[in-house]
Amino acid sequence: MELNIGVIGTGGIGRDHIRRITEVVAGARVAAVTDIDAELAGTVANQYQTRFLPSAEELIQSPEVDAVVIASWDPTHAEYVHACIRESKQVLCEKPLASTADDCRRIIDAEIAQGKKLVQVGFMRRYDKDYLSMKAAIKQGNIGAPLMVHACHRNRTHIASHTNDMTITNSGVHEIDILRWMLEEEYVSAQVLTGKCNHYAAHGLQDPQLLLLQTESGILINVEVNMASGYGYDIQCEIVGETGTVRLPDPSALQLRSEGRHGFGILSEWSQRFVEAYDNEFKHWVSDVKRGKLTGPDSWDGYAACITAEALIRARNEGTAVPISIGTRPAFYH
Amino acid sequence: MELNIGVIGTGGIGRDHIRRITEVVAGARVAAVTDIDAELAGTVANQYQTRFLPSAEELIQSPEVDAVVIASWDPTHAEYVHACIRESKQVLCEKPLASTADDCRRIIDAEIAQGKKLVQVGFMRRYDKDYLSMKAAIKQGNIGAPLMVHACHRNRTHIASHTNDMTITNSGVHEIDILRWMLEEEYVSAQVLTGKCNHYAAHGLQDPQLLLLQTESGILINVEVNMASGYGYDIQCEIVGETGTVRLPDPSALQLRSEGRHGFGILSEWSQRFVEAYDNEFKHWVSDVKRGKLTGPDSWDGYAACITAEALIRARNEGTAVPISIGTRPAFYH
Amino acid sequence: MELNIGVIGTGGIGRDHIRRITEVVAGARVAAVTDIDAELAGTVANQYQTRFLPSAEELIQSPEVDAVVIASWDPTHAEYVHACIRESKQVLCEKPLASTADDCRRIIDAEIAQGKKLVQVGFMRRYDKDYLSMKAAIKQGNIGAPLMVHACHRNRTHIASHTNDMTITNSGVHEIDILRWMLEEEYVSAQVLTGKCNHYAAHGLQDPQLLLLQTESGILINVEVNMASGYGYDIQCEIVGETGTVRLPDPSALQLRSEGRHGFGILSEWSQRFVEAYDNEFKHWVSDVKRGKLTGPDSWDGYAACITAEALIRARNEGTAVPISIGTRPAFYH
Amino acid sequence: MELNIGVIGTGGIGRDHIRRITEVVAGARVAAVTDIDAELAGTVANQYQTRFLPSAEELIQSPEVDAVVIASWDPTHAEYVHACIRESKQVLCEKPLASTADDCRRIIDAEIAQGKKLVQVGFMRRYDKDYLSMKAAIKQGNIGAPLMVHACHRNRTHIASHTNDMTITNSGVHEIDILRWMLEEEYVSAQVLTGKCNHYAAHGLQDPQLLLLQTESGILINVEVNMASGYGYDIQCEIVGETGTVRLPDPSALQLRSEGRHGFGILSEWSQRFVEAYDNEFKHWVSDVKRGKLTGPDSWDGYAACITAEALIRARNEGTAVPISIGTRPAFYH
Repeated sequence: MELNIGVIGTGGIGRDHIRRITEVVAGARVAAVTDIDAELAGTVANQYQTRFLPSAEELIQSPEVDAVVIASWDPTHAEYVHACIRESKQVLCEKPLASTADDCRRIIDAEIAQGKKLVQVGFMRRYDKDYLSMKAAIKQGNIGAPLMVHACHRNRTHIASHTNDMTITNSGVHEIDILRWMLEEEYVSAQVLTGKCNHYAAHGLQDPQLLLLQTESGILINVEVNMASGYGYDIQCEIVGETGTVRLPDPSALQLRSEGRHGFGILSEWSQRFVEAYDNEFKHWVSDVKRGKLTGPDSWDGYAACITAEALIRARNEGTAVPISIGTRPAFYH
Repeated sequence: MELNIGVIGTGGIGRDHIRRITEVVAGARVAAVTDIDAELAGTVANQYQTRFLPSAEELIQSPEVDAVVIASWDPTHAEYVHACIRESKQVLCEKPLASTADDCRRIIDAEIAQGKKLVQVGFMRRYDKDYLSMKAAIKQGNIGAPLMVHACHRNRTHIASHTNDMTITNSGVHEIDILRWMLEEEYVSAQVLTGKCNHYAAHGLQDPQLLLLQTESGILINVEVNMASGYGYDIQCEIVGETGTVRLPDPSALQLRSEGRHGFGILSEWSQRFVEAYDNEFKHWVSDVKRGKLTGPDSWDGYAACITAEALIRARNEGTAVPISIGTRPAFYH
Repeated sequence: MELNIGVIGTGGIGRDHIRRITEVVAGARVAAVTDIDAELAGTVANQYQTRFLPSAEELIQSPEVDAVVIASWDPTHAEYVHACIRESKQVLCEKPLASTADDCRRIIDAEIAQGKKLVQVGFMRRYDKDYLSMKAAIKQGNIGAPLMVHACHRNRTHIASHTNDMTITNSGVHEIDILRWMLEEEYVSAQVLTGKCNHYAAHGLQDPQLLLLQTESGILINVEVNMASGYGYDIQCEIVGETGTVRLPDPSALQLRSEGRHGFGILSEWSQRFVEAYDNEFKHWVSDVKRGKLTGPDSWDGYAACITAEALIRARNEGTAVPISIGTRPAFYH
Repeated sequence: MELNIGVIGTGGIGRDHIRRITEVVAGARVAAVTDIDAELAGTVANQYQTRFLPSAEELIQSPEVDAVVIASWDPTHAEYVHACIRESKQVLCEKPLASTADDCRRIIDAEIAQGKKLVQVGFMRRYDKDYLSMKAAIKQGNIGAPLMVHACHRNRTHIASHTNDMTITNSGVHEIDILRWMLEEEYVSAQVLTGKCNHYAAHGLQDPQLLLLQTESGILINVEVNMASGYGYDIQCEIVGETGTVRLPDPSALQLRSEGRHGFGILSEWSQRFVEAYDNEFKHWVSDVKRGKLTGPDSWDGYAACITAEALIRARNEGTAVPISIGTRPAFYH
């Protein structure tokens, strides 16, 4: 039995998910698509021989849709998630879950009130094989207890509409989530250092930014978020433990020797780096939905990421360290 | 419209292909399976909710089967390929295409007589992203004209029934095919050097063997085929050109520092190394069959690999270089 | 004409310098040695067939000594440097130049009053080929203007007498100096983060510590100083520029594949890592002394390192960022 | 007491050795130099403030010369070595020891007749730390018994006077020596494969050449000797054992990320690659000469390299494998 998925949003990431569901994920099909740009959505529906529905609301309510993927404009996420909860339909919502931590809490309240786990947030890195190996290595005690994390998140260049806050909420948020998941601890304080700005970045943009987080047990994390590295899309992470360290590998690439140099190519776009992670995310989600037991990042994780991002923004704006109080994960989400 | 595939052989590789068609390849399903071990085939049919048929002949002739995958015992390949040709059904046959070059020629004759390209041989490495990058780098002129190739094919350990000839026909045959494809040239001579044997290999086994091939334009190839490396499954290849070299990367793996060493894991089994290549092979084959235009390795490639392997075996047994005469690719296979 | 060098201190580092001057540096010899442990110094004098003198004062004043190397207990450095200045003798003083920044200033005053540059401080990393390449790469514009620095300084284990301050003054001080030299900028603020302690480190030791520095132009630096990494002595440094990054390589080491892993050895002791840098330091110093023109790190650099270390210690103890005011390099030191 | 060394030959390598003895090697000085180009030798003598002598004979006989370094034109080596033996003076002769294996045997006879080991041949790679580590790793059993060797010796470009034989006698001879030393076995057969020529190499030059050697116990060796790699000077070597492999590292170099690539520089000249090996060779030789006990490569090693090179040349010219019969090392050389 195939899972009938409705996709809200037919922009870049939405179309990629439509292709993924159609071509890569066995046991699922795209039953309907919608977008505020109806013409675009219509074209995409045509291309993938699926149905166009005129609004997200209709799509969510459609009896032909078993489960929903939200890949629309960020500010619309919360509203559509609430609609899915009302319809008691499973939903995979691209990050962020909502625009504010308070909005995330309202989703949590609604989901708990509704009585069933329905929401997964699109933190696809949890499905990347290298992060999975890293977590396994830590669990196996290969490096002893973690003490410090050095990470960097570098984009080659940024979009014109990029803002200082988006550095944290759009880019750094991936590290916020993956490191909570990796270390299995909550954050207790946040600080952001800014300094010399890259003059190739847009005027007024504080780029790069250095995010500093500390966890409950005292693990110190620093993350360089760099929107204009100039050379490529480069994700690095090293966990320093009491007896050793683990580090993400570079994506494997052909080794070339020529003109006095040894070299290999670095990816230029984020979409290339996590292709397999997205594929695995969708495969697991479809399988989880079918067997009725979600295992991916949930509303609580969406909330934790959001409140941490808010703390980082406040810390940066105030130029000081600020405490983070995530609170206790409700039993509902265990 | 889904492609209905019949799979002959439900041993390790056969089951893996059944899983692949079912879970990984969109647009195809397993319509029937068979095996000389009927009980095993029945169990597998049950597991994947597909039909068991009592013989390869019935499976090939079944109107419910659109296309066939042959993953049975090597000596049966040729017979089943002929049956597919008689039924005018597309067939993906695991290597080898047949037990002898002469048998391969008979398949070629039958296929040409039948009038339509029907046969693809399971040289999955052609779908590996690293080999594809390597070929692209050569085409782009990144290393100049190729002059020499250093390759090695190392298994961690060998199966009990392994023979000296299998080192060439089962293992080295992958390098024979991939290097013809990479260099786009035929081989003209073969030699094999044997020397000190690994005493961890079975008694009487000449392991490792060094295969030496030369192409039409004079490119010199050496391939270490090592059935008992002891440490892992390790495939390496470096092409030396007039101005530079390209080399396959190691599969990417977590970087660990502990106990005075930096290290990363090496794969232990061949099945791990080419998972994605197999996936891509099947996706392309299904897509090619549907649109009626095969692009993968064909009967001629199966024949070329076979005649080269025979030359290598003769060269090794006679302790001398022997010429290889592959002949001209028939227009049918252009 | 050989340079006659007197060496104060015949402990580990002192003996290593005596060996170096005797066996590695052409154009120089050890003319005399001394140590507060007269018996030890006598044994060393015997071993290297040089003269034992009963006190540092006599050694510095001896007409047989042209230039002095100070490798004694840290708190004695300043006094011996002053004595060298009074004798107008060239002196290579192991770091630190003095115990406090104020003491460093008094040395500067005395040196300027004396009228001739006489003092070099033992920051040997400036002579390491990898740091030199890194500085050259930056100067050549290979990465654009530097924006951020990620460094780490990991010891395998620490000595019993190690203190929290020594993490900064003994270990981190090398990064303090090398990064000022690399970036050619002074520091303007300091912060230190401490968190979860390695329970393999001594009780009460805050280990690791994360040093945060910012330069005049706003370059953000973070340095993990880790006294008990458990796995080896590991020095890493990456400079992130506007268009690219440069990173120190690992010291080259034999590549081994065995037992399912690829690996190479990591050094265990700091003395192995900078052997060549020490050799080059001494060769350059001897050559500079002979031609009468010092080019190495001078008293001002010793002072800058010291005042920065003091700021870091205060920042750590107060749990806040503190400003650093190094002041303007006197013309005397240009 | 300093060792007084006379250097015959003031071309590139000779001048480099003069500089080395003067600046790098403690306990030795250049007492005299000579060259068939008297003007050049005079200039060099001046530069290094040493004595010019008008002929090699006078230099060898001079009472001011304790030991001799031969760095003259290859065909003169044997004659000067004989002169050193007659004078009972220690001599470090650049490879080759002589132009033919027969000439090498005559040196061996003369040296034995004279009664004292006097001759060391300039196979400096034996002093390279990576080859030393490799040999140590094998001895420690890290890879089990060696079975196969893959090596390559690539020059960026060749000199105008380069010949097909020089590929073996000048370049490949280094691998001939280092692998005998590494494996501690003699060669028993030789073969050379030639194929497609690099059109950037000189007209008529067979480049690259693939040297194939087999040792007494059956270890199979292949060495690509490539005089016109185009991209740099690149020495690679991998030893394949029964349970693992060891491989030379690339010389460590700064890691740069820019313009979509990760890369590091490859050396362009052989002189850069083995600087430290040459330094160590001379330090050991001077020390050995002083204590009267040579430990480096001796006349027998020079002979073994020469007879192996001759076998390779004959094998290439005849297009077949030829046996090598080195014979038994005389007790004199144990």
